[in-house]
Amino acid sequence: MFYFAYSLSLLFGLICVIIVITWNTCYRGGFAWDGTGKMFNWHPLCMVSWFVLYGNAILVYRLPFTWSSNKITLKLVHAALNLGALILAVIGLLAVFGFHNKMHIPNLYSIHSWVGFATVILFSLQWLLGFLSFLLPCAPLWVRAAYKDVHVFFGICFLAMTIAACLSGINEKLFFVLNAANSSTPYMKLPPEAYLANTLGVLLLCFSLTVAWMLCKCEWKRPSAHTSILNDAIEPLLGEI
Amino acid sequence: MFYFAYSLSLLFGLICVIIVITWNTCYRGGFAWDGTGKMFNWHPLCMVSWFVLYGNAILVYRLPFTWSSNKITLKLVHAALNLGALILAVIGLLAVFGFHNKMHIPNLYSIHSWVGFATVILFSLQWLLGFLSFLLPCAPLWVRAAYKDVHVFFGICFLAMTIAACLSGINEKLFFVLNAANSSTPYMKLPPEAYLANTLGVLLLCFSLTVAWMLCKCEWKRPSAHTSILNDAIEPLLGEI
Repeated sequence: MFYFAYSLSLLFGLICVIIVITWNTCYRGGFAWDGTGKMFNWHPLCMVSWFVLYGNAILVYRLPFTWSSNKITLKLVHAALNLGALILAVIGLLAVFGFHNKMHIPNLYSIHSWVGFATVILFSLQWLLGFLSFLLPCAPLWVRAAYKDVHVFFGICFLAMTIAACLSGINEKLFFVLNAANSSTPYMKLPPEAYLANTLGVLLLCFSLTVAWMLCKCEWKRPSAHTSILNDAIEPLLGEI
Repeated sequence: MFYFAYSLSLLFGLICVIIVITWNTCYRGGFAWDGTGKMFNWHPLCMVSWFVLYGNAILVYRLPFTWSSNKITLKLVHAALNLGALILAVIGLLAVFGFHNKMHIPNLYSIHSWVGFATVILFSLQWLLGFLSFLLPCAPLWVRAAYKDVHVFFGICFLAMTIAACLSGINEKLFFVLNAANSSTPYMKLPPEAYLANTLGVLLLCFSLTVAWMLCKCEWKRPSAHTSILNDAIEPLLGEI
């Protein structure tokens, strides 16, 4: 049953990436790094890819075939996948800032941008604190144990914050381009592009709900996680000096 | 510590309701039920109020002073608050459908409306299934026990789905009204109305994160909930026939 849910999440994630590429290639002119709308197109692609990679990064500890692995190996894979996701998020931000600056559009004015930017900042902070707490022995044991709850909680919250940022971003983009003067069919008439991008939003939601379900289901948690929160916190990458 | 978090969530919720009333009264002409923009204004007010009431409904089992109460009493309070929230959501939908129909604007075309509408439909279904499973003895014991996990999971998911719908709705509304031909200052210049509505979005997010934190913290769960999931499922309102 776990692998059915996991396959479903992989399928949702893969379809989301395919749809966002199709949307920006077939309807928005493709990709470039030149300050035009084609540069902006990297923004949705990177953000959707970030989300899908992030969803997989937080599922690392749930995969039954990893339970026999050394915990440190899992922590390194988790950190590496999240670092990859963070790099994608930063490229996605650079794409939209570069486009705005070239077009003399102010940055960070909509609630979509406020929440999206805050999510990336908090995500970077979470990565840094996680690295310092769980991979390097920089923090005392009780701090690590206490932080683990917060780390896991915000890990799940990022799913919610990212889905809010993604859906408001899709909504905003469709209103911009389909209600523009040169658009043949407005958003309210639901042209094929609107159906495609709305479907992307629905599938992103399905992806996040499937990932959240796998995270919340007690039976699917890594067995050692049931024993003691301290067991996880006392295994940093480097030994205590 | 629980009561600090609870007070914070009440404060966030109260400020959100005050801001949405202020926004629609001071900047959008107030409220009426006449098919104009004033009728639409009930939509954000009802949806924000629904969200705040819903957040409080799912916290009923976390309040320590209720732990000595009969479980049935708590279930009834939980169901009654959620029914109140559902009524607000339905009024909010009627407001936007009435406005759209009068203005000859199609319903349910944006991703905001798709996700928001799906949330209300799923929420109604959750209420009905919860009522049939936990208050009336219509379902066998094993079905009730199995459904409880799903009920709790979707209860938390609604927080995420509603915040996604709220933020995309605020974004959409601000682009509509501030970028309209008769607007003196576009959204990108961040006029006071944009600051106010963006702040509403941020506070709604803070509210949902505070509620989610209280729900997820194991130490704050109702003590009996730790013992057996069956204990909760075998206490319907009416006895087995």
